[in-house]
Order: sequence, then C-alpha cells, then structure tokens
Amino acid sequence: MRYPTPLATLIRELGRLPGIGPKSAQRLAFHLFNRPEEDVVALAEALVGAKRGLARCPVCFNVMSAEEETCAVCSDGARDRSTICVVEQPADVLAIERSGEYDGLYHVLHGALSPMNGIGPEELTIAPLLERLTGVKEVVLATSTTVEGEATALYLARQLQDMPLTVSRIAYGLPVGGDLEYADEVTLGRAISNRRAV
Amino acid sequence: MRYPTPLATLIRELGRLPGIGPKSAQRLAFHLFNRPEEDVVALAEALVGAKRGLARCPVCFNVMSAEEETCAVCSDGARDRSTICVVEQPADVLAIERSGEYDGLYHVLHGALSPMNGIGPEELTIAPLLERLTGVKEVVLATSTTVEGEATALYLARQLQDMPLTVSRIAYGLPVGGDLEYADEVTLGRAISNRRAV
Repeated sequence: MRYPTPLATLIRELGRLPGIGPKSAQRLAFHLFNRPEEDVVALAEALVGAKRGLARCPVCFNVMSAEEETCAVCSDGARDRSTICVVEQPADVLAIERSGEYDGLYHVLHGALSPMNGIGPEELTIAPLLERLTGVKEVVLATSTTVEGEATALYLARQLQDMPLTVSRIAYGLPVGGDLEYADEVTLGRAISNRRAV
Repeated sequence: MRYPTPLATLIRELGRLPGIGPKSAQRLAFHLFNRPEEDVVALAEALVGAKRGLARCPVCFNVMSAEEETCAVCSDGARDRSTICVVEQPADVLAIERSGEYDGLYHVLHGALSPMNGIGPEELTIAPLLERLTGVKEVVLATSTTVEGEATALYLARQLQDMPLTVSRIAYGLPVGGDLEYADEVTLGRAISNRRAV
C-alpha cells in the first residue's frame, strides 16, 4: 500500500522546505488533511500572495511590498542618510529595528561570503553597496559573528578602507542577561578586551 | 518598521502549523521568498490538491483518494477480512504495511481517548468499528503505547469483551537493534515477562 497521489505530492513538497524532514512533512500533511478546507486555502493563498506581493528594495535590497518604489526605511525621510548598516538578511533589519538603537539606512547582502558553498562577492549585493556611498559618513558592518559573517565583514572593510568614511563593526561581548560561566572563552575574551569605563 | 503585509500574513499562517514556532515561520517565509515562483505555486497547489483530492475511507477511515469508493486496503480482495487492526492514525497503517507482517484490514480511530483534551469515544470512530464486526474473528489493538493509547486499547477491549472474537494487543518488548542498557525499566520488565521459548 502507498499513499494516495495527492498526499504523496504534498509530503514531497513539504519535505523540500528547510528543516523539515520526511517525518515532519508526513505529520504536517496529515495535520493539514484534518484541517477545514478554508484554513488550507488561506495558507496556500498566503504562500502565493507573499511570493507575488513582495519584492526587493532597489536601493537597499530589503524585502518590501511589490507595490512600493522603495522599502519603508529607504522611503522614510526622518532617517539618517549618512549611515548605512550592512546586514546579511532582511530578518536582521527587523531585529535591529526592534532594538530601537539605530536610525540610519540599511543594506541587505542576502547572504555571506562562503567560498565552500560557491558564494563569492558577485553572489551578494556588494557592487550596489559600493555605488551608493556618496554622502555616506559611516558604514556599520553588522554581518553575523560566524566564520562567514566575519569573512564578509573583513572583505567589506578592505573594499571600503580608502574611502572617506568610517567603517565600524558591531560590538562583541556578553549577551545581556547572560551568565558569565556559560559564555564561551572567545566571547569572554572579547568582552574583557573591549571593556569600557563606567 | 514592520514587515510588508503579504510577508506578515505568510509568517502568521506558517506559524499555525504544529511544531513551527514564530522563528521557524519567519525562516520558512524568507526561504520561500527567495525560491522561484513555480516552486511556491507547486507547494500551494499541493496543499489545496491534497485537501480536495483526499477523503476518509467510509469503511475503515483510512486516508484515500477522493475518487475511490473505499481505500486501497479495503478494496483489495486478497486481504484477510476476518481480522481488523485498530490504529490511531493513517500514518500507522503505512508503518504496519511496511513491516509486511499483516494482511488483514484496518480501522483508523483518528486519535486516542484523552479526557483532558476533551477527546471521548464520540470523537473517535469507535461506533463505526463496533458496527463492522460481523464475520470478524480477531481485533488487534495497535494503538500507541502512550498513556492515551493504552487507555484507548483498554476501553476497546472492554467494549469487545462479550463478542465472539479474539481481542489482542501488539507485543511490548525491546525494539529490534536496541541495546539492553538503554531500555527503560518498564519496557525491559515487559520484555522479560513476555519472554518466549526459542
């Protein structure tokens, strides 16, 4: 006995999503089979609606509604246009916005350098970044603190070193609310060497 | 800054799936945003296709193609119609079929008794099970070995006790390939008390 074709198709499609293995795909498929049809249609419409209703901002490459010309940050006249914060993903923009500590512009790379995975500078939005630096006084490198994120920050710092602007990197240190004994030694070392007078 | 509406909608809909929290939903949404449109449409169509193309078998309540009258097992003339194996979910049918050790019919309860969650006998397909026992010689209770599954097996055993048929329960014991020292004491106890002559 095999599953009926519509079920097998759904399990295969769900199994293509990242982090969803064959068992999870099967569990999700049966869950959806037991939901009312309107719930399943709502999910299907949300999928297609997101794909067709979203676009990348032509200035900073953040995600935006396909109906807009630039994203909500780029079109906000109150933002500081002399500072650009470089991040890997659109989700990072939202995370920094939530912190409330930044009021400049962004630039989303859509990834990080990873020669092992065939991701070089051409696969990221580095060229358009270098073309939008007129009038910019500071570039904040907020790529993640992984090996790839560090390599990307180093690469960008070198590309920007001869330009008349400040290049900064987000601070390393202990996460707020973190217990000292659980911090890894590299983070703790950075937290000590980057200590500040109180 | 908030996410554009189509993205927020997709994250909300994905977050309603079991086992997918807000972070996973966001990660999946961005993954889908970066996929080609045909992939996203294929997933959306698989969702609606599964919902509309599947039905429950009117005899055993297993999942089946909506175009068929009964499921693949019930319509198979070569199966032993005097034995019914009672399981909780359609996925359990496939798991038992894969073992190749069973050639009778099935009955899918679509759940297990759980008074805490408001699941009583009426929420399961117990009444139709009791109505299809003419000519049946054995009912195999293959609900899971959780508290709910055990309670369901016990309930069914009592319902069936005055009928002219054998009621059996799948065997407890060590999983094949399992290391004795990693088995919990209840399983090991059952494996010893259910020992068989070789």
